[in-house]
Amino acid sequence: MNPATRESLADEFPISPWSEVEAAIESAHRAAQVVREWPGERFAAFLERYAELCEASADAIISAANLETALPIEPRLKGAEFPRTTNQLRQAAAAAREESWRLPTIDSGANIRSMLGPIGPVAVFGPNNFPLAFNSIAGGDFAAAIAAGNPVIAKGHSAHPRTTQLFAEAAQQAADETGMPPGFVQLIYRTNHADGAKLVGHPLLGATGYTGSRHAGLVLKQAADAAGKPIYLELSSVNPVVILPGALQERGDAIAGEFTASCLMGAGQFCTNPGLVLLIAGPETDRFIETTRDQFTAAPVGTLLGPGVEASLRRGIAELQQAGAELLAGGGEVDASRCCHANTLLKVSGAGFLQDPAGLQTEAFGNASLLVVAASIEELRQVASVLEGNLTGCIYSHTGGIDDELYSIVAPELRQRVGRLLNDKMPTGVAVSPAMNHGGPFPATGHPGFTAVGIPASLRRFGMLQCYDGVRPHRLPPVLQDAGLPGAWRLVDGTWRQGE
Amino acid sequence: MNPATRESLADEFPISPWSEVEAAIESAHRAAQVVREWPGERFAAFLERYAELCEASADAIISAANLETALPIEPRLKGAEFPRTTNQLRQAAAAAREESWRLPTIDSGANIRSMLGPIGPVAVFGPNNFPLAFNSIAGGDFAAAIAAGNPVIAKGHSAHPRTTQLFAEAAQQAADETGMPPGFVQLIYRTNHADGAKLVGHPLLGATGYTGSRHAGLVLKQAADAAGKPIYLELSSVNPVVILPGALQERGDAIAGEFTASCLMGAGQFCTNPGLVLLIAGPETDRFIETTRDQFTAAPVGTLLGPGVEASLRRGIAELQQAGAELLAGGGEVDASRCCHANTLLKVSGAGFLQDPAGLQTEAFGNASLLVVAASIEELRQVASVLEGNLTGCIYSHTGGIDDELYSIVAPELRQRVGRLLNDKMPTGVAVSPAMNHGGPFPATGHPGFTAVGIPASLRRFGMLQCYDGVRPHRLPPVLQDAGLPGAWRLVDGTWRQGE
Repeated sequence: MNPATRESLADEFPISPWSEVEAAIESAHRAAQVVREWPGERFAAFLERYAELCEASADAIISAANLETALPIEPRLKGAEFPRTTNQLRQAAAAAREESWRLPTIDSGANIRSMLGPIGPVAVFGPNNFPLAFNSIAGGDFAAAIAAGNPVIAKGHSAHPRTTQLFAEAAQQAADETGMPPGFVQLIYRTNHADGAKLVGHPLLGATGYTGSRHAGLVLKQAADAAGKPIYLELSSVNPVVILPGALQERGDAIAGEFTASCLMGAGQFCTNPGLVLLIAGPETDRFIETTRDQFTAAPVGTLLGPGVEASLRRGIAELQQAGAELLAGGGEVDASRCCHANTLLKVSGAGFLQDPAGLQTEAFGNASLLVVAASIEELRQVASVLEGNLTGCIYSHTGGIDDELYSIVAPELRQRVGRLLNDKMPTGVAVSPAMNHGGPFPATGHPGFTAVGIPASLRRFGMLQCYDGVRPHRLPPVLQDAGLPGAWRLVDGTWRQGE
Repeated sequence: MNPATRESLADEFPISPWSEVEAAIESAHRAAQVVREWPGERFAAFLERYAELCEASADAIISAANLETALPIEPRLKGAEFPRTTNQLRQAAAAAREESWRLPTIDSGANIRSMLGPIGPVAVFGPNNFPLAFNSIAGGDFAAAIAAGNPVIAKGHSAHPRTTQLFAEAAQQAADETGMPPGFVQLIYRTNHADGAKLVGHPLLGATGYTGSRHAGLVLKQAADAAGKPIYLELSSVNPVVILPGALQERGDAIAGEFTASCLMGAGQFCTNPGLVLLIAGPETDRFIETTRDQFTAAPVGTLLGPGVEASLRRGIAELQQAGAELLAGGGEVDASRCCHANTLLKVSGAGFLQDPAGLQTEAFGNASLLVVAASIEELRQVASVLEGNLTGCIYSHTGGIDDELYSIVAPELRQRVGRLLNDKMPTGVAVSPAMNHGGPFPATGHPGFTAVGIPASLRRFGMLQCYDGVRPHRLPPVLQDAGLPGAWRLVDGTWRQGE
């Protein structure tokens, strides 16, 4: 459906029965046997050719995504998300070629050598909110799994099937042109829940990457865990933002503007959307609340990705209200002809939050946020200390240092509960940087040691640690042989060296 | 009990009720809040002082371990395992001090910085077979968790409680002398299974390290997984050894001697004991089987760690026989006055193995091994292709290269199913090397990306990825500040550099 008009789109897409899912797994397994010892160069060639073919089909892909998601072509899809997608494919290609991601480690004296090798076929479940950059057959998880040397079985998201199909056609063409075996890249469509669980726990599967709702993700997690198969999940996050009093005194209106822009951009449909703001009661906080309330009321209302997001946003807001949050902005009908919901701002006291911390951490995915007004820094610290795991946490403080004591009280609480700690900026905008962490403690993700964004770190999720003990030199993977590979960093007898 | 005499030892030890386990968790959580941002130097100081205090109590510890496990004082406990234990503590101290284990990564342009930080309190369950080097309050998991900056709650193994108590007393003294907070190191004794599950899934716990039986480990895994808490398990492994025909032609008797020694050493009670030998039928294989059968029959029978190991060994051998294995050596009563079982060698054809691969991969932990005689290299490859995940896999081949084609057929099958691939040597002996992998695919462990032995890699299990995005310089951990730390390796803008 086109969420901007609520009209069904013309294309039809299949449902994938278990027989086809199983055939895909078996085919991916055979492909894994073929490519298992291939040099990174081969995967790099595929990824680079794929990026070129995506660019050749850019207009068709972008316009399909726009129709299916209502995300605007400019500035979003064409100006930002599409170039990010091909950039990720090329960064992954460079990492595959260099092979430093393997963390090659050599103990010359004992002649023991180890590196990360391919984990086996990877299933990728992409989310609804990034039809390009997190697409199951073109996005970050796909690029990382391929660069690590693994075939991918992509599960197309049902909200943007045509976009995904166009990517898949380009991927298959790139695979053919670069000599990848059949089954190296595969796309399945909607499956029933039981088949999804069987897929992620299948004996021939290596691992799974999943980005999506917490409920569906936990069902898959249970199946993968029971089978001993790694599953990397990005589930949900309310991304707490702490704004300390000195910062509000110094630049409260500017911060209000940053917050409103970050929260409403893309109708708030970002994993790192600032859904929870922690404040300390006072006149500057009152002013901040009034300003943001007025901004939320005045700002245009974005179109949501579809009726599913619309329904879950309404449910989330209702749950927050039921848990004690007061509605400051939002609540009325905006435009029944498209998928949308009024920009929504809610408020609760710190004491109120502490009475039902679980209910008040309900994720209302979309253009909504909850302000928590604590009576004191100690109450704010208590609120921070009961937060679930999140992807990000932000702290705004006075530039002159007058908030530093308060910072030192709240930052340690936040640090242990978030993957990425920010100062003086909003959490939206996840740079594809080697130092990025798009991850965090459960239930933000399934394991706090890994990141879904940032190359080469994201590749390591799809590697198994392979040690070679006394293995004859000519049988070693090239990057573990004495000569190494040009450009590859290795930890040799305690010293990192780069191959020449 | 003393397994060498079946006599009860005089000491009595408590059972830890849930109230005490919960108090330990809360105390560890408070300790984690205190030490969370401490420099690695503080943990190094504790570990080094602890190693000294262990050495001061060495005689008492070693003699307690000898009484409780029947492992010989020489060459095992005093000559090998005790020095390994203090060496691990000191290697972990060096890693904690250097901080390179954190993989500090800096993107200067974007001002994004990340590293591994402490994951939170760690529960450690140690095994029965290494009362010193894998002891829950002195062994590799303990050292790694502490070096990563986490308090430890050690669950003492019920088969060597006095040994563990002596370690714990030294650990507490070291903690006191080096200014660690209360709850930084704690020991609990036997708990019931439900309490163990509650411990590993507790909201205040960071992670768990477990080495032991598959059955108990999987119960804990389920509880930890459901709570989203990382658990690192070392469960079971039969450690396949492939001996190719050319190697048998060239040096069959020598390999037989190596195999017998590796399999019977320490009564076979090693995680990496060679419990499965894959051969191709032929006259050299017949001779190898005869030789090893004679050696197994003639060799002295070691004392087992206790009645539990004795019973499980007998059960494992019976299950292998029931699955179709033929007994070549063993079977009779040896000495009822101590815990032991006759050195046992079993045999099955490749075709027989393929009829019940699960049953014939039953781990018979102890002085027993199963020979699989395949009719051809293709049958041997098929056997290798149905193996479960293992810690190790070995391949013996002719030194002149005449086995190289066979090697290239079997090695890829083995590579993807084992953590450590060896050439021309037996798997026992796990060097504490930075390049070691003491891990492997499920069910050998719970995740194929991690190792339990080898510093600094083993520390990474107990770290969470912490990213700092635009955080003001003075608020960064020292290793992420521009100046860095002396000796610490960091990946700065794509280049590994060491701090001066």
